[in-house]
Amino acid sequence: MPQPKLFSVIDRAVFDYRLIEEGDNILVGASGGKDSTALIEYFAYRLKQKRENFSVTALNIATEIAPPFSKELIEVFAKWEIPFKTLTISVLDRLKPGRTMNCWWCSTQRRTELNNYAIANGFNKIALGHHLDDILETLLMNALNKGQLSTMPPRLAYNKYPVTVIRPLCMAPVTMIQEHAAQQGYIASTCTCSYQDNSGRKEARKRLEALTNGNIAEKQRLFNALRNVRMEYLTYPYTDKGAD
Amino acid sequence: MPQPKLFSVIDRAVFDYRLIEEGDNILVGASGGKDSTALIEYFAYRLKQKRENFSVTALNIATEIAPPFSKELIEVFAKWEIPFKTLTISVLDRLKPGRTMNCWWCSTQRRTELNNYAIANGFNKIALGHHLDDILETLLMNALNKGQLSTMPPRLAYNKYPVTVIRPLCMAPVTMIQEHAAQQGYIASTCTCSYQDNSGRKEARKRLEALTNGNIAEKQRLFNALRNVRMEYLTYPYTDKGAD
Repeated sequence: MPQPKLFSVIDRAVFDYRLIEEGDNILVGASGGKDSTALIEYFAYRLKQKRENFSVTALNIATEIAPPFSKELIEVFAKWEIPFKTLTISVLDRLKPGRTMNCWWCSTQRRTELNNYAIANGFNKIALGHHLDDILETLLMNALNKGQLSTMPPRLAYNKYPVTVIRPLCMAPVTMIQEHAAQQGYIASTCTCSYQDNSGRKEARKRLEALTNGNIAEKQRLFNALRNVRMEYLTYPYTDKGAD
Repeated sequence: MPQPKLFSVIDRAVFDYRLIEEGDNILVGASGGKDSTALIEYFAYRLKQKRENFSVTALNIATEIAPPFSKELIEVFAKWEIPFKTLTISVLDRLKPGRTMNCWWCSTQRRTELNNYAIANGFNKIALGHHLDDILETLLMNALNKGQLSTMPPRLAYNKYPVTVIRPLCMAPVTMIQEHAAQQGYIASTCTCSYQDNSGRKEARKRLEALTNGNIAEKQRLFNALRNVRMEYLTYPYTDKGAD
């Protein structure tokens, strides 16, 4: 079988950002959705290539508001020889009085547990399934709502903890992952619960499509622009660096 | 008369970017349109305030393809006590064989002449009438077409020439300039010629409106994001700077 197109795109990100290094012990956040499942499939493929020594464990942070992790998917992970663990937390119990559940808050709780688990169990990297569209949507939210030029970077070391967050799908358009998941026949579920308060991201998705005309090449150029920042041609007030 | 709202926005940009400094000799590009006319009106107002010693001259680079500069506007400049000069060039003669005229190329020719005039006549600053929307449109064009994060900055020194380009309207939304021009009753003309090949910028304008929902506050936050760049949260490949 030829290498799937998606895997070539992930290879490129892994190379550009040194996302997999000799001796890595990687914890992947497994949500049960197409993104983290494709990422785990890639890791299984890369492990078989033996290009470097590293190990991968998948961890699902389960909550009382989401359906349980698919048994079929657990069997798929076993076939791929990726160890799978589950940790169940209550997100409703953690809500402060008067606050209502929303996607941002729930994912923050699950991220914290993922971080804690990685640190407590000696993982040096945490791999997340955010893809190109996720990263560009966050860019637009941060710019238009917070007035800050920032997003979820492909590789980010924490200063306080001996762990680095990596996002190997950072260059993969969501449509490419969808096509790949359909071809591979994943029985993936998306994040479903009875709250689904995700209006900020839904709005950002609409804006991203409007900005790029839904054009993948334009999304990729926008991603490239984020690593081709010409500070002297932005609007930083206190510089007097010149142009040629 | 209270200070026009537009002038408060320009004051802020002048302060943040030190656009007017003691002893400045500023050449303003005067197109005859609302933007450069509003900028010249601001300079006249600021000169009367005597907050600093500086001088301003307006220069129109005329071409054979655009209508001549409005006589009424020349009288307005005289009333404002801003010296006005004209330099006429032929842009058609400069076209290489087989090339057709377009707005980008014509404006490049006029910009070159403006620069040459400033350098030859001892001006240390060149003021241009680009406003907030112009700057954000250029940002989108550079990001989506060139994969580069850059735009026309509020203040830019040339390394090779003793001249600094300033854009005092950089924080002013185009709608605010339009309202101001209507209130002041400018007899301003827009750039009109028989070519009008401006498709790139027109498309960028549509994208900017789609991205921001035409919302001025969002445009201003996007501008602020350009001076609040968090490099470690972008996608630059060769850094390992950590997060807290």
